[in-house]
Amino acid sequence: MFYFQTTNKHKFKEAKEIFEKHGLELERIPEKYREIQASSLEEVAIESIKEIGKKNVFIEDAGLFIKALKGFPGVYSSYVEKTIGNGGILKLMQGIEERDAKFVSIVAFLEEVSPPKVKVFKGVVKGNISYEVRGKEGFGFDPIFIPQGYNKTFAEDINIKMRLSHRKKSIEKLARYLRHRR
Amino acid sequence: MFYFQTTNKHKFKEAKEIFEKHGLELERIPEKYREIQASSLEEVAIESIKEIGKKNVFIEDAGLFIKALKGFPGVYSSYVEKTIGNGGILKLMQGIEERDAKFVSIVAFLEEVSPPKVKVFKGVVKGNISYEVRGKEGFGFDPIFIPQGYNKTFAEDINIKMRLSHRKKSIEKLARYLRHRR
Repeated sequence: MFYFQTTNKHKFKEAKEIFEKHGLELERIPEKYREIQASSLEEVAIESIKEIGKKNVFIEDAGLFIKALKGFPGVYSSYVEKTIGNGGILKLMQGIEERDAKFVSIVAFLEEVSPPKVKVFKGVVKGNISYEVRGKEGFGFDPIFIPQGYNKTFAEDINIKMRLSHRKKSIEKLARYLRHRR
Repeated sequence: MFYFQTTNKHKFKEAKEIFEKHGLELERIPEKYREIQASSLEEVAIESIKEIGKKNVFIEDAGLFIKALKGFPGVYSSYVEKTIGNGGILKLMQGIEERDAKFVSIVAFLEEVSPPKVKVFKGVVKGNISYEVRGKEGFGFDPIFIPQGYNKTFAEDINIKMRLSHRKKSIEKLARYLRHRR
């Protein structure tokens, strides 16, 4: 049995389906945990899972990294979303032609507690920042993110998001690792 | 003897002068410490000083809070400075007439280790966000911050900054507290 510590039911549901596909059982720990301030998602996740300190538990964290903004909002994506939001990002991108961006998801899994052994898995979707807010599905920065090879934002076509999801990729990597480990 | 844990020599020098004025001795601990992600400077500072866990030590953290941007960049001011910078803030403020902002400094002092007793002091300077980058003195957001009652930015007149400094206020409060405690 494995455990996904998250307050987000939707994330859990998505992960559970992936685990089941691989013949693995997953339960949710619906508790918050402390995150540190650091310059990478990896560092934040590794420190957090060590602090949680329970075997076979994983956490997931994600962010939007915009090249022309030196990776902003990055690690602090959820804070930026709550303050300046999509409108703020578009304003920052006014007059900037280089629209490259990526969604990154990091999964940190605690394989051994003492000494701590953490496995980290990364999922990435590359794309571009749109010129206006488009679509109503998804959440967060979905309405301004157009994945590479498409011309709709994640919020305009939730099926594309579901198929390409950075989170799906990182959790899929974890599930594959766990299945082959046994 | 008291201790200021900071990697910043300038902050330490400023604090040492204030302490000496109050007949108090201050030494520097030039080590980094871990900061958590939280929605207020107070929370970050309290958790950090508890983790440091040494008696008579204090830390200081500061941020710029812009009203029209729901407090952004706030707790994550230094990250925002390193990524989108002053140019980014001005872009976000384009077309916004409400320019109210404040610099806030929080000092957290560990009075007792176990159980931890933390004293928190706050210093605030109110002002406005300028319409362009002005001046070369100071650092960070100084070139876009005009204190209330003035028409120059902190970076145009460093003496005004020195006199009004949010950091000076919070550290002054701590020094006064320590002097009267004895």
